[in-house]
Amino acid sequence: MTIDIVTLENLLSERKVKEAKSLLKSADKALIAVLLDQARGEYKSKIFLLLDDDVASDVILDVSDYTRQEILSHLTKGKITKLVEEMESDESTDLLTSLPRRLVKQILKYLTKKERTSIEKLLTYGEDTAGGLMKVEKVLIREDTLVGEAIEQIRKQNVENLHNVFVVDKKGRIKGVLPLRNLIIAKNNTKVSKIMDRKVVTANVSMDVEQVARLFKQYDLYSMPVVDSTNRIVGRITADDVMDVIEDEAEEDLYKLSGIGADERVYDPIQKAIRGRMPWLVVNLFTALLAALTVSLFEGTIQKLVLLAVFMPVVAGMGGNAGTQTLTVIIRGIALGHLNKKGMKRVILKELSLGLLNGILIGAITSIIAYLWKGKPLIGFVIFLAMVINLLVAGTVGTLIPIILKKLNIDPAVASSVIVTTFTDVIGFASFLGIATILLSATTI
Amino acid sequence: MTIDIVTLENLLSERKVKEAKSLLKSADKALIAVLLDQARGEYKSKIFLLLDDDVASDVILDVSDYTRQEILSHLTKGKITKLVEEMESDESTDLLTSLPRRLVKQILKYLTKKERTSIEKLLTYGEDTAGGLMKVEKVLIREDTLVGEAIEQIRKQNVENLHNVFVVDKKGRIKGVLPLRNLIIAKNNTKVSKIMDRKVVTANVSMDVEQVARLFKQYDLYSMPVVDSTNRIVGRITADDVMDVIEDEAEEDLYKLSGIGADERVYDPIQKAIRGRMPWLVVNLFTALLAALTVSLFEGTIQKLVLLAVFMPVVAGMGGNAGTQTLTVIIRGIALGHLNKKGMKRVILKELSLGLLNGILIGAITSIIAYLWKGKPLIGFVIFLAMVINLLVAGTVGTLIPIILKKLNIDPAVASSVIVTTFTDVIGFASFLGIATILLSATTI
Repeated sequence: MTIDIVTLENLLSERKVKEAKSLLKSADKALIAVLLDQARGEYKSKIFLLLDDDVASDVILDVSDYTRQEILSHLTKGKITKLVEEMESDESTDLLTSLPRRLVKQILKYLTKKERTSIEKLLTYGEDTAGGLMKVEKVLIREDTLVGEAIEQIRKQNVENLHNVFVVDKKGRIKGVLPLRNLIIAKNNTKVSKIMDRKVVTANVSMDVEQVARLFKQYDLYSMPVVDSTNRIVGRITADDVMDVIEDEAEEDLYKLSGIGADERVYDPIQKAIRGRMPWLVVNLFTALLAALTVSLFEGTIQKLVLLAVFMPVVAGMGGNAGTQTLTVIIRGIALGHLNKKGMKRVILKELSLGLLNGILIGAITSIIAYLWKGKPLIGFVIFLAMVINLLVAGTVGTLIPIILKKLNIDPAVASSVIVTTFTDVIGFASFLGIATILLSATTI
Repeated sequence: MTIDIVTLENLLSERKVKEAKSLLKSADKALIAVLLDQARGEYKSKIFLLLDDDVASDVILDVSDYTRQEILSHLTKGKITKLVEEMESDESTDLLTSLPRRLVKQILKYLTKKERTSIEKLLTYGEDTAGGLMKVEKVLIREDTLVGEAIEQIRKQNVENLHNVFVVDKKGRIKGVLPLRNLIIAKNNTKVSKIMDRKVVTANVSMDVEQVARLFKQYDLYSMPVVDSTNRIVGRITADDVMDVIEDEAEEDLYKLSGIGADERVYDPIQKAIRGRMPWLVVNLFTALLAALTVSLFEGTIQKLVLLAVFMPVVAGMGGNAGTQTLTVIIRGIALGHLNKKGMKRVILKELSLGLLNGILIGAITSIIAYLWKGKPLIGFVIFLAMVINLLVAGTVGTLIPIILKKLNIDPAVASSVIVTTFTDVIGFASFLGIATILLSATTI
């Protein structure tokens, strides 16, 4: 029997719990997470309760935000506490932040004092900061320790997923990073300060996670110490956490550019999808109406020459396409931290030239086709001029809008797209119909 | 003096090489990579030649594809060989793949036999496979080895960035993974087979890098053995390589949806940008002309009621927006491996319902505004009906097109967007103007 959501839900509705449980045993964690996302309503928590604690504590963090909320709302405090105990401190914190405050307080009471203190501390940091990403589990070694003693300390502390230890001075300030490989290769009576890596890349607890990810990539890190304002080590960020950040950030840009709520997943229910998508559609509707208002100013012109209505969406649409291309390159440039003051001038010059060139090329192709199709050379001329103007505008606003939004501390990915297409729509219609109006008053197209 | 590209280029044009060199010493690798991207023409290689070999071998892989090609074309074979020697085998391979075959052969001759054999082997694997991503540097330990002996072997082999060693049987087949942490904690006379992790996640050399990245995230890996078809270990993939893959894949989807050449960077020259963007603009132009053809069929109707030209882009545009939303959620679902057969039905049902709901809501708002603005109730009715039809179409094609393309083994990110907007444009114009035509022949709007 292969496992799929329909089979699984049927087994549960017939109360064949044993069969369902053994079916789930055959699935890997990734598939279980997908099945939980696919399950309808209360089946989510019913399936979840069939899982072993170690599997459950893994998949609860892999399912969609919606599924997690749905499952947690059906679990007892005791069960949630068990899950929290299975996790490393950063994961426990991630799980607890999805719960109401009052419930978190109650669950924290069940934990050991040590666990409680770490998690309470971690909960104070913002989700998008190094503090919110780190775990507290780490090994600190004093700089005058010998290799043999260091190994003894690592044995005692027994921290999981350990790839390097941090070397500190008497006051607990970071002095170096010591990869376990160096420790293994060294002799037992060597001082750790001799074999540690003195070039340490650290993150302050309040550093933005995007910046943390950039440092990981830049220095090919596996693990990074997090320090507080007095330069004392409070935690550790590991490569697996950073992979999630990199994926999430890139996905966020994609979602924002398409106008979708940041956390929508393919199996989320309609209510959730509509909450994320509808506001964006309404905003777009009003900008579309602004474009309609522009067209409305030229009703008289269109009445004289209906052919204009045929070509006007082409000019506006091509502006939108070219604007989106520019926008995407600029937004990635900003996200990767590549744009700076002196470089900006070169970029603006590039995009303006490109806009002009695009306009001339696309304008020429379109006007030739329009002439061959409809046999009116002046319509071709109007299209050409309007296309050059609009693609120049597309290049300009596609470059400047995200840069300006970034300066104003507004996320360029979320607002740029709608502003740029509003410009290209309005300018596209206005230039095309405006030029036509002038020509029509002077001659017959 | 702060470092920026204008200052740097000026120093070089005045032949103040020493000053330029000391200025570069103050910059970190990330900034140097940006400066190289920003530099014009031959300044790229001039600046590059001022860098120390260890810095140079790092940044050459961080600059844009265009900049790398430009720099490499100005370097001597000797210099490139030096860079290759500074790198781990996976990086050398990445660098060499950007060079013409004949040059690669010449450079390989300068290397030691061991280096040459590894790199020649790595060059045979596809760029997007586990084989193309892995490095050959690794430590293999036989399963009956004692911890003390294993440590001795690690010491001798002296592999960099080592976080775990792979345990193999007599025939070199993988039996387990041994994190260095376990090795440190264990006693010297323990067998490694006792402390190794028997649950090994491996990749076959031909596995797609997206799948590799998914496994890394799913199992929180730091390092993964790569095996050939006989299950023998041929290399190792590390977390830093995977971070680059995750970032590149997400960016690729974004770029494809926006119609940009996959590797364009913000400072790339106009010629490069236009090669990546123009084909897409031309494709979009032809679909826009298809939409224009649709409008053209209704010229008579528009002649009778010019007001239709005002609202027709609103209906088509909203279809495009809603279609893009659906498309993005589906494409992410496919990329994350969440879509399967039984789940598909639920997704299609969700998106169709959502399309209908969106259509009714957005259609109602638009028709009320249109009625209040222009005072014609029947125009409102036409807009409402056309909007419902078009947003239903948007939901349907937004879901089905990427799924169908995936089945046909065509990358859904690259072609979906243009197909979906063609549908929403054509159906948007046709439904709006078609309904208006029918009503106009029966009554006066």
